[in-house]
Amino acid sequence: MNINRRNFLRNAAATTFGLAAIPEILSAAMPINQKKKKGLISGLKTGDVVLFQGDSITDAGREKTKQLSNSQGSFGGGYAFLAGAHLLNEYAAKGLLFYNRGISGNKVYQLADRWQKDCFDLKPKVISILIGVNDFWHTLDGKYDGTVERYEQDFRQLLILTKKMLPEVHLIIGEPFAVLGCSAVTEKWYPAFDGYRAAALKLADEFNAVFIPYQSIFDEAQKYAPGKYWTGDGVHPTMAGSALMAEAWLKAVK
Amino acid sequence: MNINRRNFLRNAAATTFGLAAIPEILSAAMPINQKKKKGLISGLKTGDVVLFQGDSITDAGREKTKQLSNSQGSFGGGYAFLAGAHLLNEYAAKGLLFYNRGISGNKVYQLADRWQKDCFDLKPKVISILIGVNDFWHTLDGKYDGTVERYEQDFRQLLILTKKMLPEVHLIIGEPFAVLGCSAVTEKWYPAFDGYRAAALKLADEFNAVFIPYQSIFDEAQKYAPGKYWTGDGVHPTMAGSALMAEAWLKAVK
Repeated sequence: MNINRRNFLRNAAATTFGLAAIPEILSAAMPINQKKKKGLISGLKTGDVVLFQGDSITDAGREKTKQLSNSQGSFGGGYAFLAGAHLLNEYAAKGLLFYNRGISGNKVYQLADRWQKDCFDLKPKVISILIGVNDFWHTLDGKYDGTVERYEQDFRQLLILTKKMLPEVHLIIGEPFAVLGCSAVTEKWYPAFDGYRAAALKLADEFNAVFIPYQSIFDEAQKYAPGKYWTGDGVHPTMAGSALMAEAWLKAVK
Repeated sequence: MNINRRNFLRNAAATTFGLAAIPEILSAAMPINQKKKKGLISGLKTGDVVLFQGDSITDAGREKTKQLSNSQGSFGGGYAFLAGAHLLNEYAAKGLLFYNRGISGNKVYQLADRWQKDCFDLKPKVISILIGVNDFWHTLDGKYDGTVERYEQDFRQLLILTKKMLPEVHLIIGEPFAVLGCSAVTEKWYPAFDGYRAAALKLADEFNAVFIPYQSIFDEAQKYAPGKYWTGDGVHPTMAGSALMAEAWLKAVK
């Protein structure tokens, strides 16, 4: 998305704020993926494991001592909790096991460092990964020297290894996103940050993963309420933003 | 529900466990309330306040210092968070304010003690109250000497005062529930506990409140997965149980 597009959305948000209901957000933002892997969850069998992986957006304040399956405390209060709880209710008779192993601050190389313990050991049938905003964000204060090339390369290696170890696994890749005009996200992020989004999409195609276009979703959402309604700092979603992400995730896989 | 009914459900759970999907739980458990106050939420206006009140089931680990509206940390990880997040997404353009003021361990007289600060001061347009399990449970270890008559009387006084102070408020009353065979709930609870459920229903009728029949819902749910799948100790819902409660709550008010 270029600068003009972002400005358009901000202006649109101001003029259309007040619309009654918003079923249109996801139908506008997810035109392609709707049919991609419908039935992914309903096709799972008793005891199958679904794993959420990522950074603080996935972590969402979960406890990291017990790290139980299907547990509120171990799931935190983000999109993973909302999506997992929804499916545990809807598919109760399946006895599925949902785990959250997102860790705040993680970049893609840090997922790789803990992938044996926090992925392979759990023997997941579905892995949902949302990673990348820190791979860019942490370069801004000079404390991390990663590049978009390193992000793409590390992510690809992680996915190659994953497919090697778990040939039948279903992959879900979330688009890294940022909402301009909120406290942490400035014009300084662009166009560099857009490269990380493009890399995630490219990898989703390469590995036949379901792609959740969170950036398009948050862009559309701003037609109905301001950016801060969906994410306080432009990176971490609010209750509303988490629910929007969970709705999109569910729409892509159910 | 009598003992035979409960035994039937336990047996039914054993035999029918494994069914594919469960849209039937709420249609079976909520035959009356479906049409009662449809559109309650969609009829709200910008800035209107929706308040969740109750005990630990509503509290669900929320932080109690800031107690912000529309905040994950201030909402905990229970049915109130799931229902609130869903509506903040669906009705984004309305700019509604959701508060959770449930406090773990509360009985109905303790709601009354803090009703000015934790209800009237927030000027709610909708109040959802789930209270009663502790009014019974805490009598079992001899540390509380309340009765079902006191529960009904205190709850009625609270509702009379609420209607006096907020004549236009929409009331939602949740049925206290317990799931037999989980760690905290034994035969000793019956038939005494059933009186608290009956009192809540009676009051919902008296005050024209939406009634959420959580007991019937958890009874139906056990046809699809064991009690422990929905609530570990028979009182506090799991992720799946919280999602089921939120689904019921939303069905009743949307």
